[in-house]
Amino acid sequence: MTLTPEQKAEIEAQRAAPAPTLRTVSEGMEARLFTAHPVLDHGFVRVIDYMGDDSAIVQAARVSYGRGTRAVSNDEGLIRYLMRHWHSTPFEMCEVKLHVKLPIFVARQWIRHRTANVNEYSARYSILDREFYLPAPEHLAAQSATNAQGRGDVLEGAEAERALEWLKDDATRAFDHYEAMLSTEGQQGLARELARMNLPASVYTQWYWKTDLHNLFHFLRLRADSHAQYEIRAYAETICDIVADWVPLAWRAFEDYRLGGATLSARGLDCVRRMLRGENVTQESSGMSKGEWREFMKVIDRG
Amino acid sequence: MTLTPEQKAEIEAQRAAPAPTLRTVSEGMEARLFTAHPVLDHGFVRVIDYMGDDSAIVQAARVSYGRGTRAVSNDEGLIRYLMRHWHSTPFEMCEVKLHVKLPIFVARQWIRHRTANVNEYSARYSILDREFYLPAPEHLAAQSATNAQGRGDVLEGAEAERALEWLKDDATRAFDHYEAMLSTEGQQGLARELARMNLPASVYTQWYWKTDLHNLFHFLRLRADSHAQYEIRAYAETICDIVADWVPLAWRAFEDYRLGGATLSARGLDCVRRMLRGENVTQESSGMSKGEWREFMKVIDRG
Amino acid sequence: MTLTPEQKAEIEAQRAAPAPTLRTVSEGMEARLFTAHPVLDHGFVRVIDYMGDDSAIVQAARVSYGRGTRAVSNDEGLIRYLMRHWHSTPFEMCEVKLHVKLPIFVARQWIRHRTANVNEYSARYSILDREFYLPAPEHLAAQSATNAQGRGDVLEGAEAERALEWLKDDATRAFDHYEAMLSTEGQQGLARELARMNLPASVYTQWYWKTDLHNLFHFLRLRADSHAQYEIRAYAETICDIVADWVPLAWRAFEDYRLGGATLSARGLDCVRRMLRGENVTQESSGMSKGEWREFMKVIDRG
Amino acid sequence: MTLTPEQKAEIEAQRAAPAPTLRTVSEGMEARLFTAHPVLDHGFVRVIDYMGDDSAIVQAARVSYGRGTRAVSNDEGLIRYLMRHWHSTPFEMCEVKLHVKLPIFVARQWIRHRTANVNEYSARYSILDREFYLPAPEHLAAQSATNAQGRGDVLEGAEAERALEWLKDDATRAFDHYEAMLSTEGQQGLARELARMNLPASVYTQWYWKTDLHNLFHFLRLRADSHAQYEIRAYAETICDIVADWVPLAWRAFEDYRLGGATLSARGLDCVRRMLRGENVTQESSGMSKGEWREFMKVIDRG
Repeated sequence: MTLTPEQKAEIEAQRAAPAPTLRTVSEGMEARLFTAHPVLDHGFVRVIDYMGDDSAIVQAARVSYGRGTRAVSNDEGLIRYLMRHWHSTPFEMCEVKLHVKLPIFVARQWIRHRTANVNEYSARYSILDREFYLPAPEHLAAQSATNAQGRGDVLEGAEAERALEWLKDDATRAFDHYEAMLSTEGQQGLARELARMNLPASVYTQWYWKTDLHNLFHFLRLRADSHAQYEIRAYAETICDIVADWVPLAWRAFEDYRLGGATLSARGLDCVRRMLRGENVTQESSGMSKGEWREFMKVIDRG
Repeated sequence: MTLTPEQKAEIEAQRAAPAPTLRTVSEGMEARLFTAHPVLDHGFVRVIDYMGDDSAIVQAARVSYGRGTRAVSNDEGLIRYLMRHWHSTPFEMCEVKLHVKLPIFVARQWIRHRTANVNEYSARYSILDREFYLPAPEHLAAQSATNAQGRGDVLEGAEAERALEWLKDDATRAFDHYEAMLSTEGQQGLARELARMNLPASVYTQWYWKTDLHNLFHFLRLRADSHAQYEIRAYAETICDIVADWVPLAWRAFEDYRLGGATLSARGLDCVRRMLRGENVTQESSGMSKGEWREFMKVIDRG
Repeated sequence: MTLTPEQKAEIEAQRAAPAPTLRTVSEGMEARLFTAHPVLDHGFVRVIDYMGDDSAIVQAARVSYGRGTRAVSNDEGLIRYLMRHWHSTPFEMCEVKLHVKLPIFVARQWIRHRTANVNEYSARYSILDREFYLPAPEHLAAQSATNAQGRGDVLEGAEAERALEWLKDDATRAFDHYEAMLSTEGQQGLARELARMNLPASVYTQWYWKTDLHNLFHFLRLRADSHAQYEIRAYAETICDIVADWVPLAWRAFEDYRLGGATLSARGLDCVRRMLRGENVTQESSGMSKGEWREFMKVIDRG
Repeated sequence: MTLTPEQKAEIEAQRAAPAPTLRTVSEGMEARLFTAHPVLDHGFVRVIDYMGDDSAIVQAARVSYGRGTRAVSNDEGLIRYLMRHWHSTPFEMCEVKLHVKLPIFVARQWIRHRTANVNEYSARYSILDREFYLPAPEHLAAQSATNAQGRGDVLEGAEAERALEWLKDDATRAFDHYEAMLSTEGQQGLARELARMNLPASVYTQWYWKTDLHNLFHFLRLRADSHAQYEIRAYAETICDIVADWVPLAWRAFEDYRLGGATLSARGLDCVRRMLRGENVTQESSGMSKGEWREFMKVIDRG
């Protein structure tokens, strides 16, 4: 990640100027504000603003007049209860705004989460920086043989070398031509809204992205999951660390009930009950397909 | 509006405890925080939290790294440009959370605005306060003769007296029976989720309501409008005052381009152009229906 | 449920006039169209329109050019895979539009599901029918002693009688006064938008409600659940029957993975694994609170 | 636009098989169903399904039991009234599902409209066709000198030639390498989710896109506008033709009140009123900035 001296100065200026507020303050989040947390080779996540903390969840669930005087242990119990019983609206009462720099192919996955506010850097209006994602050797992986939308082993030798070469050369050339087409030196200069189409999906874009905690948890459940593509997972994991500092009680409930938990189907539940009664259940007697049975075995740690 | 001493103390406690933050602070909003602004006879609007101010709109539109050093005059010009050209996403970068106490029939109109987060006081879980809306004599109006969904003149004399009497008596009796049915003195006590169905739509409920500035403006444009029912307009107007303190530049642009402006149809625009060229345009030659023509005449101040 | 002869004639007229279409047709839904399926004492659910069927889910998941020639068994496997792995967008490709008549207190729960399109009968514009919900004796229940937002035993004897009497009398009187205030016989007549506030939450309203299958499933998971209030559950169950006819493969997947399944927390999953290895796990050694443990025991059928 | 024989056969098979339905049928839309309407050099728009027509808007606004017996003239008047007064919910009662093939840079603009359902062809799961957008010579335009996000004159001579050459060569090379990296001939073969990042934003993707008529109108107002980028406008204009066939009354109201109309600010409205009273209003006396005044002059046809 490379910030210009001017960008660094702007970030430092923001961190240097505290002001008094009557609003709820999250100390964990104050420590994070504005700093660029690096992700991938040129990307980052920066917290620009936030609203609320654990107490705001509790306060909204109680529709209360003040912060109340209950103990934190009560708050944690209530937050766990809300998470366990899918009461999502109190978590919507916390909001976060991030500044993210990310490759376009990651941005295209990310934007499918529609319940968020987005302002993206406009390549119609401005010229994109010459920055594109190049996987580290350990992330340059082969197509998975078993999962149609996943990766297998790391590429090796000449094949790896050639792939990296192509990714780098093609992006470099695309940028050279992008800039040459835009240039107004001795020519008209192509419209920015057209020139951008020459750039590959590895190019970095950036946006301001704002969402509430409930929808952020939904995003993290899908994107911090081991089945998510590594490149978006890297962003999700950075955000997980931030959320753990922001709303530690809600984060622990989320970890327990969503990230670390599992959903059993009616058939899966029936199998667990039968197994616990001592029955020897097989795929054949489970009512599940082979694929489902394999996934189920993993869930109960017999895979 | 009646707050209990305990509620007042909770509000004062919140206002007494400033803490340092690195986030953007809106002085106008800090002065508003937590205070209950009275609306109707028992209702209120309280600001619980907010995110961003005018500078946050500008910052998101520019996807910038810091607050920048541009003059406020530039900021105002940009905000006006964004509003004029329907660039809505930068306004979505500000967020506000309100605590509102309001009659159920107002809540039912309000909730039709779906792009907001809501936590309502639960009458399944809790017992509702004995408070219901009784219009002030000057707001007790007859059905409009010309507008199927509007009011006409103020009711007078015995008719007004009788209506207020019924509204008050029926609500009082409904509350008496509500409490009697809930009571567990010498009886089982009806479930709260059932007993509440006896209460009229004039009863006060309360909720935490959170939305972004773009959607709030949309709400205000429809609900602070002269065609909105007076009771919800009273809330919208209170919120207008709050927004003017929160984001003064955006508020002025909203006033100019939305609240005080008007949309002309293709036909209306054609009429204006012909009139400005000196043509004497009539309803017949306008292509408009009588109703449209009447509305159009009002817009250009000839109605 | 009482429909006027005119309403019945309108419904029959709609059912009598088939027309050819090139769109996907669901036979199960055609048989349901327009008919009023009774719910509670005066309510109903009517299917007004629908888009898509099971094949539309599959077609969207494959972004295909036609209906394809794959066997239904493949379709079922794919639909189950999509449901199991939380791929929600293909289910959003089916849409349904319902006409629902329901008590206002049910409408107020229902409307909290925001991802739907709603047109409600306007009591500002029109006069409400004299119909209100009166629970059948077997649904007139006491407050639950253990669940703050639930019901316990059925009310009995004089208490039940008196509650029903009050619910009926208060609603009747409210309607009498509503109509008397609206009347323009020898008086101005109160505005409809004000008069309606005298009516209790047991009064029936009606709306057109349109949503996609993914969001409908979410609604049904929460509202057809045993913890939902009986009155909204009655509607959800009627809709479940309709969905089973409309998209039988998706319905069965939903029943298996959502309605009949269960979500285990990380702690719950850990307990199941330890139990399956033969360990004797107790609440103390589970890491769960007493409440969680009780719920967990029920899930694995030891409660 | 090139469809394979197999795709053409699938489309013909769908068009050849009408079935009876009790639902509302739009003849204009039946004639459109499934056919690929070409857009740009390789793109298309296909109607896959629809729900409702003009009568469905009216029916929802009235929350009626049947189709009613009112004359079409009444329907048109009501639809115009609803459009004029921003009653958006009845228009949400119509729904359309499209299959669209479009360049990725167009898809990235399009997806910013969040109130729609989308299933995109997955380049994690599948291999993309070798098709990319190359502007026709008359659409290869220079950057606008006055509008930071627009186009100016058409590029000419050697500059145009060279730009087209680069756009073509770079995309071709990117595809060659994409395929070479994916190949499993004598090598492991790069994961599809990584290989795709080499492809430029001119590459075609495809999706199923479903939205309601209100949100579609919003999309069309912004994207069929003369300020929209030509490439997305080409899609919007094709959809406009489709909508005019689907819901002719709503379409005409939309044309009159939205597409052909204009919104005046409070200042603009004040100027019009003063001008109509004979006053000679100038930019200085208008209260507008120079930019606003220029736009205003165009609106009233004096620009």
